[in-house]
Amino acid sequence: MPIPGPGYAITARVEAPASASAAGDLALAVGRVGGVVTAFDVVEAATGHVVVDLSCNVVNETHVSAITAALEALDGVRVRKVSDRTFLVHLGGKLEVQSKVSLRNRDDLSRAYTPGVARVCRAIAAHPADARRLTIKRNTVAVVSDGSAVLGLGNLGAAAAMPVMEGKAALFKRFAGVDAWPVCLDTQDTEEIIRTVQVIAPAYGGINLEDIAAPRCFEIERRLRALLDIPVFHDDQHGTAVVVLGALRNALRVVGKKLADCRIVICGAGAAGSAIIRLLTAESTADILAVDVDGIVHRDRPGLDENLRSIAARTNIHNRRGALADALVGADVFIGVSAPNLFGAAEAAGMAENAIIFALANPEPEIDPMIAHQHAAVVATGRSDYPNQINNVLAFPGVFRGLLDAQACDITDAMLLAASAAIADVVAEPNPSFIVPSVFDAAVVPAVAAAVRTAASA
Amino acid sequence: MPIPGPGYAITARVEAPASASAAGDLALAVGRVGGVVTAFDVVEAATGHVVVDLSCNVVNETHVSAITAALEALDGVRVRKVSDRTFLVHLGGKLEVQSKVSLRNRDDLSRAYTPGVARVCRAIAAHPADARRLTIKRNTVAVVSDGSAVLGLGNLGAAAAMPVMEGKAALFKRFAGVDAWPVCLDTQDTEEIIRTVQVIAPAYGGINLEDIAAPRCFEIERRLRALLDIPVFHDDQHGTAVVVLGALRNALRVVGKKLADCRIVICGAGAAGSAIIRLLTAESTADILAVDVDGIVHRDRPGLDENLRSIAARTNIHNRRGALADALVGADVFIGVSAPNLFGAAEAAGMAENAIIFALANPEPEIDPMIAHQHAAVVATGRSDYPNQINNVLAFPGVFRGLLDAQACDITDAMLLAASAAIADVVAEPNPSFIVPSVFDAAVVPAVAAAVRTAASA
Repeated sequence: MPIPGPGYAITARVEAPASASAAGDLALAVGRVGGVVTAFDVVEAATGHVVVDLSCNVVNETHVSAITAALEALDGVRVRKVSDRTFLVHLGGKLEVQSKVSLRNRDDLSRAYTPGVARVCRAIAAHPADARRLTIKRNTVAVVSDGSAVLGLGNLGAAAAMPVMEGKAALFKRFAGVDAWPVCLDTQDTEEIIRTVQVIAPAYGGINLEDIAAPRCFEIERRLRALLDIPVFHDDQHGTAVVVLGALRNALRVVGKKLADCRIVICGAGAAGSAIIRLLTAESTADILAVDVDGIVHRDRPGLDENLRSIAARTNIHNRRGALADALVGADVFIGVSAPNLFGAAEAAGMAENAIIFALANPEPEIDPMIAHQHAAVVATGRSDYPNQINNVLAFPGVFRGLLDAQACDITDAMLLAASAAIADVVAEPNPSFIVPSVFDAAVVPAVAAAVRTAASA
Repeated sequence: MPIPGPGYAITARVEAPASASAAGDLALAVGRVGGVVTAFDVVEAATGHVVVDLSCNVVNETHVSAITAALEALDGVRVRKVSDRTFLVHLGGKLEVQSKVSLRNRDDLSRAYTPGVARVCRAIAAHPADARRLTIKRNTVAVVSDGSAVLGLGNLGAAAAMPVMEGKAALFKRFAGVDAWPVCLDTQDTEEIIRTVQVIAPAYGGINLEDIAAPRCFEIERRLRALLDIPVFHDDQHGTAVVVLGALRNALRVVGKKLADCRIVICGAGAAGSAIIRLLTAESTADILAVDVDGIVHRDRPGLDENLRSIAARTNIHNRRGALADALVGADVFIGVSAPNLFGAAEAAGMAENAIIFALANPEPEIDPMIAHQHAAVVATGRSDYPNQINNVLAFPGVFRGLLDAQACDITDAMLLAASAAIADVVAEPNPSFIVPSVFDAAVVPAVAAAVRTAASA
């Protein structure tokens, strides 16, 4: 069973007979079925009984039922109510809009609003570039999703994507002081998405596309980059690619190999895989094999779509064929952004000496990380309960901080490569368990932002 | 010359010879050409000279030149720089997005963002109504403009409309705790505006349309009301109508007349005029004449568009014809939402005894308020430098507060009438100079919100 984490925390209000052992009995019962008790608060103590709020981390809904049953199996114990503490965090939404200007009196109003504001409007109409000086455009990013690929959950639609986009906006502010706003679109038509983003763009200094399904996301990004005079960044592609490449730099330092000498297998040719390949090939001439559900991507494989054709043209110089297992033989690096449990000990053992395995499928990686550790020198996952978490939060806040500060009109591979190098360099002495900095390392965002700014002015 | 107001305030950095009379000389020079000095700060005092920041309210740019010239005409005085203090208020935009949730550590992240957020997304996908509970939709309004009728300035476009929409959002928060977001659309095509608002609607609990030109605004509002399950409110129409009707209630109390007995002239048949007529006719059977640039609207007038046909059907029961002057003869109430200086003393004198004049064209009213005062019992304008300012800030914050609290799906005339009555009733004892409360009266928003909530649940 997976380890319970704070992402799923419940509080059970429990009524129990008053006794010296009540607290111990309850905690023991929860622990016996795998719940991790985090807090215990007595709410009410009467002569005959006590009422306590018992908080614990759990795995899933079945687990909640098991815990409730275990508690109620105790003599005289009744579970009055189980509340999901995560939902409390989201209640009423996670963002608010604040005024930066004082509105205490009539004079304030006449400057911030009518009649004074008219002069500011006329100034922007006369000099459109002043919008970056006199409106929120200077520091504001749209977090745009059509809800078609929400986390790993699939096509949940616009309304259900809001909690993620709000969370993302909260992270933008927390880590980089960027004002970000969730824009969840009630359409999944490529043309409508493109046109809508174009129409709402005047308020924003950048567009962060999020959780839009492939292959639609490629065209949307490409077309918007051509249409808009602000940077457009699909985080599932480029954010992931930046962090992966940063982590890979340090992993290679740990094992003492050079990127250009490596055989690299990229498993997954969706948004993330395509972007990783693009950034890797912009950086070096490493020998890359891309693998998807149909095996190794090669230029003669029938039925390649535009994205796969582009991947075939950039990778697999020897035009190899076969399955994932074939690709892994002798490979120095495995980077998976695909599906759970695709290979095991045998394939990992067949990789080159001092192999690097990034198994990033979430929540279940491509290979059990414990098995990977037995055969590879460096292992990374997308999970927070193992070392070396590949987390996009390392990239997007600093990238947009840099783009906004530079008043950048577009985003280039040079900026993304600079960002990945900056993330890697925050770790002074990488080791097998420490190839990326913590997302809470305050040095990350300034370093990434500075790298992007410098690349933007180059 | 108009009186200088705080909406146009400058600070001149002035170098002058050091002398006991320097301050007085400078202030006198500014005052002599009509500037209103508001602050005087010594920045630097050397042996031979002083440098001061002289702040003053001015009328317009020509006035700034006149003040600069007057200062430099003084012996040894040099104006180093003139800065527009209003622009300082707008620098960098007027809004920021704040996270309402704590993001201090990994546990916080795992609840507010992945993996915990996934459960919240699934809950909304399963029960779409939960979006009002678990996302910002509960308290968030879009302030939507296409920039086609920005204030009285005309068609400035989306980017130049931003300072107004940001200001509006700031007022929403300041007065009613509503989170509002500026949505400035880079299109003026009716169908595209409708479709874009529909596509971005999932994030919002209400839509405030703003500064969209007539007649486009009528169709946009009507169609969006039919398409969306959240209230759609065009402030230039209904906000104005609510405040006008509230003010009119109290004006009629002051003069002791009943609405149903009045002859009312509405001058202007655009967004505001049409909505005022609609609300007046929903409330009473008063005899109303609508007047536009082509004179009195009557059902046989050639070339009536859809909006004017609807007005003709609701007004002018005796099918009268003529110009504004004809309409005014014997009228009890004049409400102007049209253009500057349309009539004078003669027409005002020809109105009924104890006439009421609301001359709301901005910044120049339909009749000089001083002249109106000589002939009418109650006069109101849209300006803050006369008593009885008809200001939409009295309506929209409380209206949306009430709509959001009621989780209203639409907006009805009953809610608007309730809001107008609530505004009027905040003034316990109306008199000719006090028919509407101050926008800073803390009783206004709760009263309006409660009225709207009650009407919503009726």
